[in-house]
Amino acid sequence: MNAKLQPLAEEKVFKDPVHKYIYVQDRTIWNLINTKEFQRLRRIRQLGTSYLTFHGAEHSRFSHSLGVYEITRKVISQFERGGYADWPQDEKLVSLCAALLHDIGHGPFSHSIEDVFDTHHEDWTCRILLEETEVNRVLKEVHPDFPEQVAAVIRKTYEKPIVISLVSSQMDADRMDYLLRDAYFTGVNYGTFDLERILRVLRPHRGRIVVKESGMHAVEDYLMSRYQMYWQIYFHPVTRSSEIILRQIFRRAKELSMNGYAFKWMMEPIARLLGGTIDVPNYLALDEATVQAAFTQWQAEEDKLLADLCRRFLERKLYKYVTMDEADEELWARIRGEFSRIGLHPDYHLEIDFPYDLPYAVYRSGVYDAKKDDKSPILVLGRDDQVYEISEQSDIVRSITGMHRGKYHLYYPYEPLLESADQLSEELRQLFELDKEGA
Amino acid sequence: MNAKLQPLAEEKVFKDPVHKYIYVQDRTIWNLINTKEFQRLRRIRQLGTSYLTFHGAEHSRFSHSLGVYEITRKVISQFERGGYADWPQDEKLVSLCAALLHDIGHGPFSHSIEDVFDTHHEDWTCRILLEETEVNRVLKEVHPDFPEQVAAVIRKTYEKPIVISLVSSQMDADRMDYLLRDAYFTGVNYGTFDLERILRVLRPHRGRIVVKESGMHAVEDYLMSRYQMYWQIYFHPVTRSSEIILRQIFRRAKELSMNGYAFKWMMEPIARLLGGTIDVPNYLALDEATVQAAFTQWQAEEDKLLADLCRRFLERKLYKYVTMDEADEELWARIRGEFSRIGLHPDYHLEIDFPYDLPYAVYRSGVYDAKKDDKSPILVLGRDDQVYEISEQSDIVRSITGMHRGKYHLYYPYEPLLESADQLSEELRQLFELDKEGA
Amino acid sequence: MNAKLQPLAEEKVFKDPVHKYIYVQDRTIWNLINTKEFQRLRRIRQLGTSYLTFHGAEHSRFSHSLGVYEITRKVISQFERGGYADWPQDEKLVSLCAALLHDIGHGPFSHSIEDVFDTHHEDWTCRILLEETEVNRVLKEVHPDFPEQVAAVIRKTYEKPIVISLVSSQMDADRMDYLLRDAYFTGVNYGTFDLERILRVLRPHRGRIVVKESGMHAVEDYLMSRYQMYWQIYFHPVTRSSEIILRQIFRRAKELSMNGYAFKWMMEPIARLLGGTIDVPNYLALDEATVQAAFTQWQAEEDKLLADLCRRFLERKLYKYVTMDEADEELWARIRGEFSRIGLHPDYHLEIDFPYDLPYAVYRSGVYDAKKDDKSPILVLGRDDQVYEISEQSDIVRSITGMHRGKYHLYYPYEPLLESADQLSEELRQLFELDKEGA
Amino acid sequence: MNAKLQPLAEEKVFKDPVHKYIYVQDRTIWNLINTKEFQRLRRIRQLGTSYLTFHGAEHSRFSHSLGVYEITRKVISQFERGGYADWPQDEKLVSLCAALLHDIGHGPFSHSIEDVFDTHHEDWTCRILLEETEVNRVLKEVHPDFPEQVAAVIRKTYEKPIVISLVSSQMDADRMDYLLRDAYFTGVNYGTFDLERILRVLRPHRGRIVVKESGMHAVEDYLMSRYQMYWQIYFHPVTRSSEIILRQIFRRAKELSMNGYAFKWMMEPIARLLGGTIDVPNYLALDEATVQAAFTQWQAEEDKLLADLCRRFLERKLYKYVTMDEADEELWARIRGEFSRIGLHPDYHLEIDFPYDLPYAVYRSGVYDAKKDDKSPILVLGRDDQVYEISEQSDIVRSITGMHRGKYHLYYPYEPLLESADQLSEELRQLFELDKEGA
Repeated sequence: MNAKLQPLAEEKVFKDPVHKYIYVQDRTIWNLINTKEFQRLRRIRQLGTSYLTFHGAEHSRFSHSLGVYEITRKVISQFERGGYADWPQDEKLVSLCAALLHDIGHGPFSHSIEDVFDTHHEDWTCRILLEETEVNRVLKEVHPDFPEQVAAVIRKTYEKPIVISLVSSQMDADRMDYLLRDAYFTGVNYGTFDLERILRVLRPHRGRIVVKESGMHAVEDYLMSRYQMYWQIYFHPVTRSSEIILRQIFRRAKELSMNGYAFKWMMEPIARLLGGTIDVPNYLALDEATVQAAFTQWQAEEDKLLADLCRRFLERKLYKYVTMDEADEELWARIRGEFSRIGLHPDYHLEIDFPYDLPYAVYRSGVYDAKKDDKSPILVLGRDDQVYEISEQSDIVRSITGMHRGKYHLYYPYEPLLESADQLSEELRQLFELDKEGA
Repeated sequence: MNAKLQPLAEEKVFKDPVHKYIYVQDRTIWNLINTKEFQRLRRIRQLGTSYLTFHGAEHSRFSHSLGVYEITRKVISQFERGGYADWPQDEKLVSLCAALLHDIGHGPFSHSIEDVFDTHHEDWTCRILLEETEVNRVLKEVHPDFPEQVAAVIRKTYEKPIVISLVSSQMDADRMDYLLRDAYFTGVNYGTFDLERILRVLRPHRGRIVVKESGMHAVEDYLMSRYQMYWQIYFHPVTRSSEIILRQIFRRAKELSMNGYAFKWMMEPIARLLGGTIDVPNYLALDEATVQAAFTQWQAEEDKLLADLCRRFLERKLYKYVTMDEADEELWARIRGEFSRIGLHPDYHLEIDFPYDLPYAVYRSGVYDAKKDDKSPILVLGRDDQVYEISEQSDIVRSITGMHRGKYHLYYPYEPLLESADQLSEELRQLFELDKEGA
Repeated sequence: MNAKLQPLAEEKVFKDPVHKYIYVQDRTIWNLINTKEFQRLRRIRQLGTSYLTFHGAEHSRFSHSLGVYEITRKVISQFERGGYADWPQDEKLVSLCAALLHDIGHGPFSHSIEDVFDTHHEDWTCRILLEETEVNRVLKEVHPDFPEQVAAVIRKTYEKPIVISLVSSQMDADRMDYLLRDAYFTGVNYGTFDLERILRVLRPHRGRIVVKESGMHAVEDYLMSRYQMYWQIYFHPVTRSSEIILRQIFRRAKELSMNGYAFKWMMEPIARLLGGTIDVPNYLALDEATVQAAFTQWQAEEDKLLADLCRRFLERKLYKYVTMDEADEELWARIRGEFSRIGLHPDYHLEIDFPYDLPYAVYRSGVYDAKKDDKSPILVLGRDDQVYEISEQSDIVRSITGMHRGKYHLYYPYEPLLESADQLSEELRQLFELDKEGA
Repeated sequence: MNAKLQPLAEEKVFKDPVHKYIYVQDRTIWNLINTKEFQRLRRIRQLGTSYLTFHGAEHSRFSHSLGVYEITRKVISQFERGGYADWPQDEKLVSLCAALLHDIGHGPFSHSIEDVFDTHHEDWTCRILLEETEVNRVLKEVHPDFPEQVAAVIRKTYEKPIVISLVSSQMDADRMDYLLRDAYFTGVNYGTFDLERILRVLRPHRGRIVVKESGMHAVEDYLMSRYQMYWQIYFHPVTRSSEIILRQIFRRAKELSMNGYAFKWMMEPIARLLGGTIDVPNYLALDEATVQAAFTQWQAEEDKLLADLCRRFLERKLYKYVTMDEADEELWARIRGEFSRIGLHPDYHLEIDFPYDLPYAVYRSGVYDAKKDDKSPILVLGRDDQVYEISEQSDIVRSITGMHRGKYHLYYPYEPLLESADQLSEELRQLFELDKEGA
């Protein structure tokens, strides 16, 4: 393949709070950033609804995508300076493009939408790369096959596995950027690890990226950061509650749409999403501004459930939750029964969440992505020149790998329960703390 | 007045990247934060369009408002710990509420909207405090006159000037928070100054807030930060360009609306804004999501000018600019003439911007606010127990106070000029760099 | 007991890189800081020889002692603000004094000196509190029994265990300050944890300090920081190597002194240290400047071994090391034999170091202190109002508690071995890498 | 000249709090760092006595020297990456060596010693480069003339002025490192500026280093940082007081030595310093440990003045000061007269300090160095490709360049005055605040 870099006359820089500066030296990268599809990522938040828990977390996928690009650029620079034979020099541009564009298929509040409409952002990424878009046009200027090559990296079918390993693995540029960035914007310091040291100990090695043994402690620190970020930020129960509301809005709207409900207010991209006929141009019109504007209008819909859910989301009147160590299907059935009896929708007003299987997943499969085991593990290059999976070498990684920690969370709307408290059983009144004075 | 604090059973905290934590100890404050009007500030960015220049600047007025509250809380705590007789202890709650709510009347991209529709966010703040809103209801629970008292602080007519001086002066909690916060989110370090030291040297003194002389250097540092932030961030020409586009969108839409143009797509809050009939409920529905959703739709309007401006904003295809040291009305008339001749709109396609009078204003009138001289100056309490205006005491403040620096910036759309370059005079081709290869 | 606080007319502050400012509000504290014994801590480094590995680690016990005081002050302030009945208010001054003075008995490079001369810095602390010193005079001004009370806290015999728990436990002010401070000055970011959050969740509870369950994650993060700091900083093999050199210098000087060797150069405090007759005034004269000045002079001593060790220390020509997973006494005996044969001192030129038992110790006994199990564990106050030891509640603490990680390190001087390489066995030539080109 | 770089097999790194890491890629640099003369810089503090005011400022010239090297390395890397023809590529090694070694001639508390003994650290730097030292041996391995070439850079007589401009100018690597480093270790944030941006806008241009116009704001910010650091840190009156004590110790010891006084305690390097016969080996033995050890011993000298000064220094019992706007020679004469009358030494017990001429000097001559106008100014490369001195282009630089700010400070020992207060005139009692209760 023959993807030539085209140096800009003058390097461009973006001021970035996480990496200080982001450097663009190649015209293709510069042109990609200026496409409308990439600019649209400014209207999609990196952390979905987390800003409802951590008010600083209002940063967009635009800034994250630049960050992933920048880390990838630094890794490759280091490989080039080191002159390592195992790094295929021609792969620089495809790697940088894949890093920059890996999230371009994200829609607003992706995780909720993907759940309800059974789509996947990586499929949309590939469609945006390959169909008639400005991104596609810029990539084709490099080479007619180039869009397909970038898509192959995203799909993990690219012929050079080292490129995939750079863009998508247990310690890839994506994860390294989001941990640092999410920590910065939420304001916590769990997510900080020594990026500069990690970059210095990465090596291309027989088609994979490995870590020199001397850098193992920096990697341990990275994994601990990740562990803490998942539990403190990404799985925060208030954030989960807002995701549940969001998912229910989409679920209800889809249900209404399928039942022929006449929305007082609708926009084409959303109508197509609900109806399952969305295409690339409409998907691209579907940013968070559009979705939130819809919610604002839907507060006045006839369907009380939809209107209430939208109000809850916009006014941050989220569901409360109680925690349980063990599953108890019978109890849950009793709750649903009582909810029906007092006029609540058991399918909407009780949601049971279990962020399960994490401890292993934190390390082995990345958690945030639905598919298990799709990320290659972290490999350590020993002093004996052998390659080891990191948990073979690190006690601390091994010990956190084996942990289980999930609990069941039951989410429910507090106010309607409180109003009907006298019609509920003692069991539920206690469970949902209806007899205590509200906080 | 008798505004009693009502301590929460347990202090609440918000994680904040700038102040580490924000502490809420009073029930009224907690209830205000949970009103829908306050939550709406999450959907309005603190720095308007600056995120198009500094991609990190995506933070909202919600987080800034909490920050202003927190700084005010810290100042008052320090006054209370010091037991200063000049601090009227009963004014704590009204001060905290005014600090928290001072920006609640901001709409989306306020500066542009205020320019075009001749409204002022402080008027909206007072209406939201006084008309039928959740905020009003919470304030009235303190005391029936309490909403009016908070509004008086906002209007600077409150009977105790020290409260006004706390919430609104040349070195108030508002400015201190936004400099630190905007520096944090853009990632620059100009805006950092020693907040903790400044808080320690503030003193209530005969109805005003003054600075102990020993803290003068910290104040100088604050003023230098402010100077740099204005020139590096707030007046950045790319940001000004995006504000111009935005203002033109509103101006065009208003013009079309007044001329009876039939918009393909419209929403009630926007229709009322354009028609000059907007009321509080519709104003509150007017967040940045709504406005951006409108722009997305308006890209398909018949009116090519409006459609193009919306596209430019969403895809960040901003106007370019050239700089001129002196005004040259004749040249500008010639440019407008040529623009008309090649089919451009001289009223829209040439905008002359002059961020004038700043150096004095940076210090004396705050710049960002339209009205001049509306902020009380910074006062220093000398060792002789006399009060001085800071520029009497500080060489560095005096020297930056006297500076002028503005230049004229001419903003224009590059592409249509380039296309018609051969129809333009040599003078304009040179001015707009049409013969050079485009960047 | 009746230790009255005496507020200063005006609060004093020290600028501190870790806590921003250190606040002194009480005259006794202010006077203690100004004693010559406390000022002497400026001439004793906090991290001993770590600056030879991490060049930033040049900070003194003076700044650490102020930091411990400041954290203690903050914890007590929080207890006072919360109005917790379990906090005995009269204990504030004794707690602050014990926090400030807990390290006043440290000598230069304490760990090495304590090893060789079998002294303990806590004994010196008590002597400095109780014998004729400026510190003693200031404490007696509070109350004639006050020096003894502060000493009782240091000795852990004080009648109120909560004071001991504040000043000396698994998560005391001492540890919290040194982790943050050592991380700051070395420049690593392992040591950063959320101090503000931890302070907020501490509670006095039936004579002990406990952590509210909601703060458990902050405590986990603190323990992980500690784990990483021990392995990355405190146990760094280059630092261990410099400590070994230092210990050998003292060991050799003591040996020479006992054998009646006539030093060309000597000073009284050092002579007394070597001879075992050191008293408080001479101990106080024994700072790092004095010790290093002695080393400078001893480079010219007749005793070649002492002269060489001093040169090695001052010029940072440390011993190299090799690592072994298992003990091998027979091998070590063979090495000592060969060393003797080629004229090296086996007692000085081979040192075997095993930083053992850490993983458990990191959590349970604090490692840095010689005596095991002398620190009370971290206690969590559950939602059920029961108190738990943290490893019962935290998977992550439990998993790191069980780990083992130590390896044997053999330290030796490289150059003399290289010179005699041809006289050594193949086994040793390989072990000490004598056939490779030197680094 | 032909100074070949000799790449190390593997890059070495030092962890550094200011630059994160310091990278050593060349064997000559590595060997220089390991010389005993360079290691000795660990025993000399970067900021002299500032640690007595800002307790964090305990960092050494060792870490600063590495920092200057690292900034120089980064500037040159950027020049190399940019491929600028105006950068003479062969000059890399000489530049790096001069940057690393520029402070190697510093003795303990240099400014005081230079004042009293009329020496200059740059002369010592050259002697250490050229006489029989390990540094000289390492440099000669590059080329027999190489030590002389490095010395020529230090003396500013090197044939390529661009190398001098890199190592010594108004915005050289030395200043950039010390501002950042001193800010970090004192804990203030005045000293932070955007190093990365400044490095990016530096250009080699016809034998000089210039700044691209687009980077002018970063340079303004750097100059403002410098201004604040000088007034807040370097000229802090408490630090000046400690320098005065130090200078008086040396002055008194020299005086005694010249008068044939028999010191109870002496060491050769100090005896030679006092007697004016110091040579390179003894100068190198003269570190801060040695000097402080001498002070410790001299507390017991017969000469009460010397003993008292040493005690004051070690116990931080500094002179107090009062401030005067104008010189008043007659008053000063009266003070000296009264001091004599009550048995004080007017030559030692009154010291008048005037940090004069700074505002201009901050920018134009660097202040910290005795000789005026010895640093080349900051040059800006305009868009018109002309070179301007920065104050022609920047209003803010021009305005701070013209400022005057110094005041006279009178330093004196408080306690002896207080004791003899009743023998002093009313004028002096008021001036020295002897009638107020002591602080």
